[in-house]
Amino acid sequence: MALVARAFGASRFILTDIMDEKIRLTVEKIVANWGGKFHFEMGKPWKRVVKEWQSKQGSVVHLTAYGENIQTSDVLKRVKAAGKDVLVIVGSQKVPKDFFSSDVSDFNVSVGNQPHSEISSLAVFLDRFYEGKELAVKFNGARMKIIPQKRGKKVVNQESSVI
Amino acid sequence: MALVARAFGASRFILTDIMDEKIRLTVEKIVANWGGKFHFEMGKPWKRVVKEWQSKQGSVVHLTAYGENIQTSDVLKRVKAAGKDVLVIVGSQKVPKDFFSSDVSDFNVSVGNQPHSEISSLAVFLDRFYEGKELAVKFNGARMKIIPQKRGKKVVNQESSVI
Repeated sequence: MALVARAFGASRFILTDIMDEKIRLTVEKIVANWGGKFHFEMGKPWKRVVKEWQSKQGSVVHLTAYGENIQTSDVLKRVKAAGKDVLVIVGSQKVPKDFFSSDVSDFNVSVGNQPHSEISSLAVFLDRFYEGKELAVKFNGARMKIIPQKRGKKVVNQESSVI
Repeated sequence: MALVARAFGASRFILTDIMDEKIRLTVEKIVANWGGKFHFEMGKPWKRVVKEWQSKQGSVVHLTAYGENIQTSDVLKRVKAAGKDVLVIVGSQKVPKDFFSSDVSDFNVSVGNQPHSEISSLAVFLDRFYEGKELAVKFNGARMKIIPQKRGKKVVNQESSVI
């Protein structure tokens, strides 16, 4: 989820309520190698994260298969029209019921109403939210960079030699 | 991956080279409950799947972070212009080198050139390929159906009583 958030244009990822060093290390390694500004946090209670976000006047979007369909409703238009920074919240297996409530979420958005995965929901939501432009973003300070090819793999190691 | 394929409009999923009864059962259960036509196969060698597809004049799209960027290149336009049915191939951890070759793939497509996941790549590729319309598709013969809501969950059990 964190790598999808990063690759699709999010600037932060907060793994709430639990600590997982393995995840933190993976994300930090990716950021060190592939660049960009991406802030990873973990362990904060989700209620606190939401409260802090609301106090900064941000919008909260809950991704759920039960929400308003991103394709057949105008929900994405309304998210954008709100003109605020967006906190996307995604539950894991057990989604707290509160996520659906107006105390927490401003919008309940479904990426289709069929079962698939949180990863695909987040990717498609961000791709549509940023209108695809996120996939053209340059990640600054990268050690490694893929040069897109019709065939084969080309990776440039951009590490500057600081001696 | 299979559930993403289904939810984003694919009609078939082939898990090549391995057999996994747990995956097969999960997919079959989802199809039985949520409807639609979706064909799941497993165990066939990937080379055979590709050869058969090519013999039917279909296009083969290999999703890879190293390929042509779906946002910054015209690759998706070319996939569509080919006007053929598409077989999407996605490697797991170890991608056979052959996937990149013109013997196998007609197009190597990257959903951005940053590391994320096969799941997000497949979802966004299909979402763009079908221009979002796949998320509005009705799945026929479903036992369960979500009625999208602004708040809360609404699931209709549509099982017809056949007595």
